[in-house]
Amino acid sequence: MRYAVVGAGAIGGYYGSKLAYSGQDVHFLLHSDYEHVRRHGFQVDSCDGSFSLPQLNVYQHTEDMPQVDVVIVGLKTTNNHLLPQLLSPLLHERTAVVLIQNGIGVEADVQRMFPQAQLIAGLAFICSAKTEPGRVNHQCYGSINLGNYSCRDEQLFQAILADFNQAGIQAASVPYLEARWKKAVWNMPFNGMTVALDTRTDLLLKQPATRALIRAQMMEVIGAARALGVTALDETFADKMIAMTDAMTPYSPSMKLDYDFHRPMEIHYLYTRPIEIAAEAGFQMPRLQMLEAELKFKSVHSQP
Amino acid sequence: MRYAVVGAGAIGGYYGSKLAYSGQDVHFLLHSDYEHVRRHGFQVDSCDGSFSLPQLNVYQHTEDMPQVDVVIVGLKTTNNHLLPQLLSPLLHERTAVVLIQNGIGVEADVQRMFPQAQLIAGLAFICSAKTEPGRVNHQCYGSINLGNYSCRDEQLFQAILADFNQAGIQAASVPYLEARWKKAVWNMPFNGMTVALDTRTDLLLKQPATRALIRAQMMEVIGAARALGVTALDETFADKMIAMTDAMTPYSPSMKLDYDFHRPMEIHYLYTRPIEIAAEAGFQMPRLQMLEAELKFKSVHSQP
Repeated sequence: MRYAVVGAGAIGGYYGSKLAYSGQDVHFLLHSDYEHVRRHGFQVDSCDGSFSLPQLNVYQHTEDMPQVDVVIVGLKTTNNHLLPQLLSPLLHERTAVVLIQNGIGVEADVQRMFPQAQLIAGLAFICSAKTEPGRVNHQCYGSINLGNYSCRDEQLFQAILADFNQAGIQAASVPYLEARWKKAVWNMPFNGMTVALDTRTDLLLKQPATRALIRAQMMEVIGAARALGVTALDETFADKMIAMTDAMTPYSPSMKLDYDFHRPMEIHYLYTRPIEIAAEAGFQMPRLQMLEAELKFKSVHSQP
Repeated sequence: MRYAVVGAGAIGGYYGSKLAYSGQDVHFLLHSDYEHVRRHGFQVDSCDGSFSLPQLNVYQHTEDMPQVDVVIVGLKTTNNHLLPQLLSPLLHERTAVVLIQNGIGVEADVQRMFPQAQLIAGLAFICSAKTEPGRVNHQCYGSINLGNYSCRDEQLFQAILADFNQAGIQAASVPYLEARWKKAVWNMPFNGMTVALDTRTDLLLKQPATRALIRAQMMEVIGAARALGVTALDETFADKMIAMTDAMTPYSPSMKLDYDFHRPMEIHYLYTRPIEIAAEAGFQMPRLQMLEAELKFKSVHSQP
């Protein structure tokens, strides 16, 4: 199978390199790192064993790339307005698009752009960072769950899973809607609250008032998921997520890093869309809607 | 009538001085400013005409003060734990206590300390500041509304109103519960949100997201008030408060000043108690409860 990677940063760069290193035919779209990677290749520093790819298929424009069987999208959702232009040259009639992106509602919007595309949600559990051009540091974890959103071709879906696993990536199939909302139970409270209060996960859980607030926000996500039919989620999952976070080392979620480094925050798919989707199902999320408003305010009036 | 002023800062200092200047028998409890005022008197720089009081009845301890007919309490509510000790020496059987303080639930708690005291809520509409020891700068407004909480002696209540007016202070009687909650409609959203987002009233109203949030928070206060029987309040009052704030010059509420100058914030009576009182009446205030949690977090993890 032929793969394309659009957004070869900490996430897309890691999974794409693993696939290429395992022998798959992978084509990378690069932006600012194009010249560097064309000359020097790609380096993955990994807890599971580092490796380098001296020679890669790299491009500056998707118009120059071949059509592929699978596109892996590793862009931040703040760039999703570019997808109509970026993806068009890559897709044939049966191309699968794996969206390794944060939030709720991404697939529905991409489907509207490409009604024929077979969409798969990629939920990555990984700590990795792009440390310099053409170099990714993979610190720990690395598994990925794939949720089938609109992939009609079950053989293709299974083939992607097999390719990932053969490349040394733990990949499993999960129910789409449940997986997206489960991830939101952690993401929606912690991403925004660490920005709103300019703090870390551990300090939020240490203060009784914010600990109770985080739990109340998790219950809003669980309530929304249940209103949408995800009955597997209940309040025991909130307790589980809080216990897990208590056991974690102090952590800055991706939105906090975006805020600290003055990059755009993924407010739309982490807050606006799930809140709208829940409201359409008759479920209100007042605390997370308040958080959304605070984040929108902070995205304009950033700290000095 | 004999008056005592406990908490002679920007508010208590202004009203007490006006009464003393008009010829009333007023006794001031002072703390850090005692020596200065004993020697040099008190100065009021006022938009309505400045004046000075070279000679005042000043004390360091209420034990040294006479019993009075009316106590004016101008302390921040963060000092209300001192009231049992401070007020006891001042009260006879029929003393009225005018609480010129922020928030909801103050009177109920003070009544528990002094079951016999005749309590009156004082709602001041004034811009004033203590600029140096023994000196208050009164910039504008200055009227006060008195709400009868537990004053059994209607003649005494009317006599206080008359004394205030005779001293050049616009004073009127208002329904207690309605007046307290009306003030909370503005106070609860703006005091906390200017701290939470480290901003000003005008910038909160300029951003559509926070403008909608402020209104939603006002509707929570109005909903709570209505659940408690204050039927005179409805959503037209929220629109009125927002229009009024649009017309104001950019403003930092008292809690924002407290936060900026690293003084304790009045979270208990501005948030915790009204939220509890509403919950007892079966009404939830999720956005203001979230704001309360954020303020509690910020009171511990203050900015550098």
